[in-house]
Amino acid sequence: MTRTAAIIGAGVIGAGWAARFLLNGWNVRVFDPDPDARSRLMQVLEAARLALPGLGDVALPPEGELTFPGLISETVRGADWVQESVPERIELKQKIYQALQSSMEEGAILASSTSGFTPSELQAGSPRPGQILVAHPFNPVYLLPLVEVVASDRTAPEDVTRACELLTSIGMSPLKVRAEVPAHIADRLLEAVWREALWLVKDGVATTGEIDDAIRMGFGLRWAQMGLFETYRIAGGEGGMAHFLHQFGPALDWPWSRLTDVPEMDDDLVIRIAEQSDAQSGTRSIAELEAQRDRNLVGILRALGYTGNGAGAVLQTADTRNLAASGVPQRFEDIDPAAPVRTIHRAVPLDWIDYNGHMTEARYLHVFGDATDRMMILVGCDRDYVAAGQSFFTVETHIRHIDEVRAGAPLTVETRVLEGQGKKMHLWHELYSGDRLLATAEHMLLHVDLVTRRSSPLTPLLADRLAVLADGHAALPRPEGLARAVGDRP
Amino acid sequence: MTRTAAIIGAGVIGAGWAARFLLNGWNVRVFDPDPDARSRLMQVLEAARLALPGLGDVALPPEGELTFPGLISETVRGADWVQESVPERIELKQKIYQALQSSMEEGAILASSTSGFTPSELQAGSPRPGQILVAHPFNPVYLLPLVEVVASDRTAPEDVTRACELLTSIGMSPLKVRAEVPAHIADRLLEAVWREALWLVKDGVATTGEIDDAIRMGFGLRWAQMGLFETYRIAGGEGGMAHFLHQFGPALDWPWSRLTDVPEMDDDLVIRIAEQSDAQSGTRSIAELEAQRDRNLVGILRALGYTGNGAGAVLQTADTRNLAASGVPQRFEDIDPAAPVRTIHRAVPLDWIDYNGHMTEARYLHVFGDATDRMMILVGCDRDYVAAGQSFFTVETHIRHIDEVRAGAPLTVETRVLEGQGKKMHLWHELYSGDRLLATAEHMLLHVDLVTRRSSPLTPLLADRLAVLADGHAALPRPEGLARAVGDRP
Repeated sequence: MTRTAAIIGAGVIGAGWAARFLLNGWNVRVFDPDPDARSRLMQVLEAARLALPGLGDVALPPEGELTFPGLISETVRGADWVQESVPERIELKQKIYQALQSSMEEGAILASSTSGFTPSELQAGSPRPGQILVAHPFNPVYLLPLVEVVASDRTAPEDVTRACELLTSIGMSPLKVRAEVPAHIADRLLEAVWREALWLVKDGVATTGEIDDAIRMGFGLRWAQMGLFETYRIAGGEGGMAHFLHQFGPALDWPWSRLTDVPEMDDDLVIRIAEQSDAQSGTRSIAELEAQRDRNLVGILRALGYTGNGAGAVLQTADTRNLAASGVPQRFEDIDPAAPVRTIHRAVPLDWIDYNGHMTEARYLHVFGDATDRMMILVGCDRDYVAAGQSFFTVETHIRHIDEVRAGAPLTVETRVLEGQGKKMHLWHELYSGDRLLATAEHMLLHVDLVTRRSSPLTPLLADRLAVLADGHAALPRPEGLARAVGDRP
Repeated sequence: MTRTAAIIGAGVIGAGWAARFLLNGWNVRVFDPDPDARSRLMQVLEAARLALPGLGDVALPPEGELTFPGLISETVRGADWVQESVPERIELKQKIYQALQSSMEEGAILASSTSGFTPSELQAGSPRPGQILVAHPFNPVYLLPLVEVVASDRTAPEDVTRACELLTSIGMSPLKVRAEVPAHIADRLLEAVWREALWLVKDGVATTGEIDDAIRMGFGLRWAQMGLFETYRIAGGEGGMAHFLHQFGPALDWPWSRLTDVPEMDDDLVIRIAEQSDAQSGTRSIAELEAQRDRNLVGILRALGYTGNGAGAVLQTADTRNLAASGVPQRFEDIDPAAPVRTIHRAVPLDWIDYNGHMTEARYLHVFGDATDRMMILVGCDRDYVAAGQSFFTVETHIRHIDEVRAGAPLTVETRVLEGQGKKMHLWHELYSGDRLLATAEHMLLHVDLVTRRSSPLTPLLADRLAVLADGHAALPRPEGLARAVGDRP
């Protein structure tokens, strides 16, 4: 049966909750007195529809129904979950809870998105304090899994369990916080960094941009996959966490932060941390943790390389610099039309390896697609040409997989133009690792108008250059496997 | 001409430097008195060879030559760059610098990996202090781009510029630190989090594992791509950074951290931060920053989804849960052999979109490859079967691209078994978005022995199940485009 969430307050956080519930198949009712709330929410929902359904590899349930009842009572009546995300003023929250609790079901959960207040503060003065808890999410709520769940001793443990199950069912990762402390866990860590960062700016040591780079080019990448303690466990090497603490503990006495009030690193704390770290990571050796870290980092860095943001910009700069020495021609004038054109020279990324231990099937087409892109650029269909409204779309592909290849191995592609006239570009790629032939690919592409999305004649520059290459390559011996259908005998 | 780096101290950091220089085409000489240093370095190099060459999309220069001269003088003589990564004891470093500087070139750079000491401290007592600077990297040095470059007023500015250019040429992102402060920039931020985290553990609020989850399921993901201030700029909405500071500034007075000594958020600091943030991010609107953030986050999360670590485990759990309702059969017994088998039901991920604004070519094969994997699982070639030593490898593929598709749109694949006997599995996939046919794919796979990497006969279970499906699907009308070669007339 479709469940219903009531969203009270539809700012960035409330709207993010609405999108997450809705796209996970819940019906969602929204209450926010701001006349702009609805259009703002629709913007968030539009962004979420692009990002969330394709986050995993399996379809989400059909989207629920979104309504704006206009009255608090109608919004919360019969709802399974009520999420409050109003401004951070305790009197305002307590007052709204009276209105919410007078209409909502006794068995429903009333969760607050508060980053600062504890459940006990929120529950004060409520006739049914037990149904109130904290479910503190992180922006963008429709993408980030973390939600801190905090209860007081007036909350029934089974309600906390039920809340966590429910949040898990909408793709989140509930972190049950053991104690009621101001700002829960994550925001305490954030606040510490924030305070230190403010000092750095105030003292003129760094600008905001430099501080962001100090994070996103370094430890931010590590933290996206492991967090603080597991990263430090690796730094401690086979000596483990206690070794690390022994090595870096003294820094607590050094002026490495403007923030003081430092806990004493006594035996008790060392043992506690070492035991917790063993419980967390102890089943994996340091070598295994390192391999896991590297594979994650390569995946993250390459994802950023695709968008060109943060560390991805560093990858793109390196690629541009390395291209000149790679043997791949950068201008049409550099090509010898009497030989196949080297269109790719690279290595197999660590994140292209599959459960069979070799480069996975789809990455063969990835490399061939990049080879096609390079040939497009060489004949004049470059970034500016695409921006001006024309491009090539592949309409047909035939691949023969001949041999396998492992992470880090070199890859080259040699490309021939079989035909290039009218609206067509017909290409032949051979993929090698050293002198070992890994695969061949035959592609038919159509030149397209990006406005009409229909095929259009090659422009003269492209037609001329393709003709030069097609003529040159026609003199080469016919490639083995050309014009082959799947299952043909060689 | 090949340049030479001298690595003094080959622990985890020194070995990481050696690998980064070597794989970027430098000759590398290593000095470390520890008899285990060489074998440890070779382990780091092995890991780096898997990860670094494939990090970008273009080949790195040919690997340089690695030597272990055995004497400091031979190690540094003629080297362009000397990188010191010995233990963090100032007297030790100063003493070693005397030995290094008596043999190294006057024009070479002597860089220290120190996380704590300032250049002025390192330079004290040196006859040529100007050639000493800090180049502080982050583990793993062969993957993370960040390197903090710190000079004193005794360092020539052109040497700092040259150092930064050189570090850029080996794929790093040098961050020139404006002032000499203990722990530079990044480690001050890390130290603040570390101290707060120690309080959380000591106070029993959270375990090490919970703290790591509070990071890697939430803000760690944001920080991998944007850092602190740009993330908060988005949180401020169109009101910008000043609005954010107005909204969250008061938290500085709240007990949100055990760390005290808080800077005053006066007008001067607000204006400074707002101006620096404008300079950093001001050319992009909040909507653009949000779109950029979402695209990065989806890429990062999906990369982790592939490895299953951190937030990627949350994605995998959600997929497993959603699979049951997706219409994709989970057991062979659930299949109706009289109809094509639904092998994929998903949405187009945001990070699968290319410069043409639609799902990029290689992702068609990604989806078809996943459809093949699902069919393999259904007929019995599941994870356990692969772990036991047998699998299928694709040997031939033909794809017809019929229509394009955008981010977030639904995708389904309907699969038929054309043949399944001997050593072969011959499949036909049709990819739809709703009822719109996007592409077809024909695949020939061979059953293989993962030890010999050669084809082997189907096991009876697989052969029986494939026969049931092939018989059922033979009664369906022949698919359009079957057995087609590239360029055949329809």
